[in-house]
Amino acid sequence: MLPGQNVKKVLFETDLGNGRIFCIAVGKAAYAMAKAAEEVLKNRITAGLVITKYGHMRSEIPGFEAIEAGHPVPDENSYRAADRAIEMIREAKLTENDHVLFLLSGGTSALFEKPVIPHPEMEKINQSLLLSGADIVEINTVRKHLSFVKGGRFAALAAPAHVDTVVLSDVLSNDLSFVGSGPTYPDETTGEEAFAILEKYHIGVSGDTIEMLMRDTPKTLNNVSFYRIGDVRMLCDAARSAAESLGYQAVILTNSLDCEAREAGAFLASIGRTYANSEAPLAFIFGGETVVHVKGNGKGGRNQEIALAAAKGIRGLRHVAVFSVGSDGTDGPTDAAGGIVDGTSFDELVASRIDYDRVIEENDAYDALKKIGALVMTGPTGTNVNDVSAVLIRK
Amino acid sequence: MLPGQNVKKVLFETDLGNGRIFCIAVGKAAYAMAKAAEEVLKNRITAGLVITKYGHMRSEIPGFEAIEAGHPVPDENSYRAADRAIEMIREAKLTENDHVLFLLSGGTSALFEKPVIPHPEMEKINQSLLLSGADIVEINTVRKHLSFVKGGRFAALAAPAHVDTVVLSDVLSNDLSFVGSGPTYPDETTGEEAFAILEKYHIGVSGDTIEMLMRDTPKTLNNVSFYRIGDVRMLCDAARSAAESLGYQAVILTNSLDCEAREAGAFLASIGRTYANSEAPLAFIFGGETVVHVKGNGKGGRNQEIALAAAKGIRGLRHVAVFSVGSDGTDGPTDAAGGIVDGTSFDELVASRIDYDRVIEENDAYDALKKIGALVMTGPTGTNVNDVSAVLIRK
Repeated sequence: MLPGQNVKKVLFETDLGNGRIFCIAVGKAAYAMAKAAEEVLKNRITAGLVITKYGHMRSEIPGFEAIEAGHPVPDENSYRAADRAIEMIREAKLTENDHVLFLLSGGTSALFEKPVIPHPEMEKINQSLLLSGADIVEINTVRKHLSFVKGGRFAALAAPAHVDTVVLSDVLSNDLSFVGSGPTYPDETTGEEAFAILEKYHIGVSGDTIEMLMRDTPKTLNNVSFYRIGDVRMLCDAARSAAESLGYQAVILTNSLDCEAREAGAFLASIGRTYANSEAPLAFIFGGETVVHVKGNGKGGRNQEIALAAAKGIRGLRHVAVFSVGSDGTDGPTDAAGGIVDGTSFDELVASRIDYDRVIEENDAYDALKKIGALVMTGPTGTNVNDVSAVLIRK
Repeated sequence: MLPGQNVKKVLFETDLGNGRIFCIAVGKAAYAMAKAAEEVLKNRITAGLVITKYGHMRSEIPGFEAIEAGHPVPDENSYRAADRAIEMIREAKLTENDHVLFLLSGGTSALFEKPVIPHPEMEKINQSLLLSGADIVEINTVRKHLSFVKGGRFAALAAPAHVDTVVLSDVLSNDLSFVGSGPTYPDETTGEEAFAILEKYHIGVSGDTIEMLMRDTPKTLNNVSFYRIGDVRMLCDAARSAAESLGYQAVILTNSLDCEAREAGAFLASIGRTYANSEAPLAFIFGGETVVHVKGNGKGGRNQEIALAAAKGIRGLRHVAVFSVGSDGTDGPTDAAGGIVDGTSFDELVASRIDYDRVIEENDAYDALKKIGALVMTGPTGTNVNDVSAVLIRK
């Protein structure tokens, strides 16, 4: 599921004409995608810009500027990044012969931002949305309407140049208008919908903000093309192939898991209990992105919470393991990709004098899992196609 | 999964000697189980007593007294029922040659009760436990220690007679000590454990109650035998057979589902979305007993909440249905067995001006599902082996 090869495949098969090429890569996978583009296009790129999360820029890429910025909450560098991209395409005085190659991956909503309202107000709204339990579709509907670059507005700025967007999707519905809040994709959402979401979660905003919220985003764009190179379905397929190559009978049960993380963990554990005595090695695979309604001030992430919750449900079982990881390698605001537990994990937690109920209640999975060696640490992976969980049974 | 036939099978195969037989049937399935015993043993039964939930006594059974009582919260008739059973075996002056045939099914914990503490205090504790989110194992651990008849104490009262217990299990772990709080089964739980559960859920009790809570239940019993005639595994197997006979490819994914009901509904919906375009008819089957952390004053039950939550997740899908039902035919304190929804249900709710988010939040599924004809109504079924849910896909 690493995106570089798939970017190269698209570029080998796509005609970018004879004009100039401006390459802008944004998202958690931006480094790998830009690197692949540079390796294929080399000097054909007039100017390049990589915008990614802190710590995700592995090395310089020839001909590319790089900006690292805040995620999941945008920061000043997110604004600087959007400003720089706008400046680059404005200064170029783009013509119909030019192409903007936009390499898009998850995380873009936060990393690439230029609000149409004062930054502190925007930051307050972002924080409120993230804590509210709103799903990513709802959060991005609001962000689109309060941004200079989202909901198709960046592609409108790049006209009359053609904008070729290569997409690595982190949205379960696979609706391209929601990947990175769709900087280059026509937007169907309305100001009324965005306003209804703020009301639903009781997020108060100023009258000026409501006015900006109501302004239309582009409903059609004539200068755009899209190329999909990866999503959670491919992640699940890759997990199944990996499991099969290890001798498991593998089945994908869902590729759009979206319930509360801890309850997903309990559900996975119940499947583990049911098949605990299987003679055949079994792998049940679940793709998606669960949610956490944050109650405590603990450190963790949705994948760690799935693993921690499953630990109790498979306590004492000898042949069952459950893992859950984010494909990007960073689960929540932590340096872990996720967690992995088996039938001994719960008793190890107890032996380590960890107050399990408190840890679950306060969303504090990281330190608990760390103490028993149950974190999965990969570092940034260079991709970002949601999460994958599995129940593994092997005698 | 109707228990009568299985009771008969046990009785045909079991030697109850030549002494007297006292038959006491307790639980939601007590009527069907007692009726079967009467049909096999007829005049061999010296005296019989059926104790079941209100509305579950379908007709008189020759030679049996009948008492209907409160469930899920015990009431005065629950206490009267236990008193009558104790009186029956005391007056009989049982000997080693006598048998007590104890026909046990779910619901017994509430229906058959004689607290060792004042009734109002017991009622307060029961109510607090039911609202706390404590699971059935935790609730029954407390009940055992505060009861004259649970945790093996009823079998101790029946000594030296032999107690033959025929069990229809509604406990996921299938641990016989927890079915009906184990009136005839040796009890491993301690007073300390029971006290810890009250503390966990912040339920305050008097000093006298704590003293009674600490008294030992019988750890061994030499006069007991057990015969299992049904449980959630058999329910799942029956559901799979029924689905297969309707042409579905069917798979049981779990027989111990125990997470939050609404999250289970979301999880089921995500499986429905993933397989929505399957050419083959598919049935995914889930057995267990989910929990509801009651927040509102609405009317509903865990199966109705699963169906209602799934309705949103399968909105618009043309070939997917999700149902969830309690095998006893009464989901929560309602006259419905559960709910069934498909891709049109959510929009029907919207068209009926039902505030979906409010209904979910306030545990008020019954009226919403009723309005769109999505309740499953069976009436009391005569059995009680937890719940079964399914995701069905058919083009």
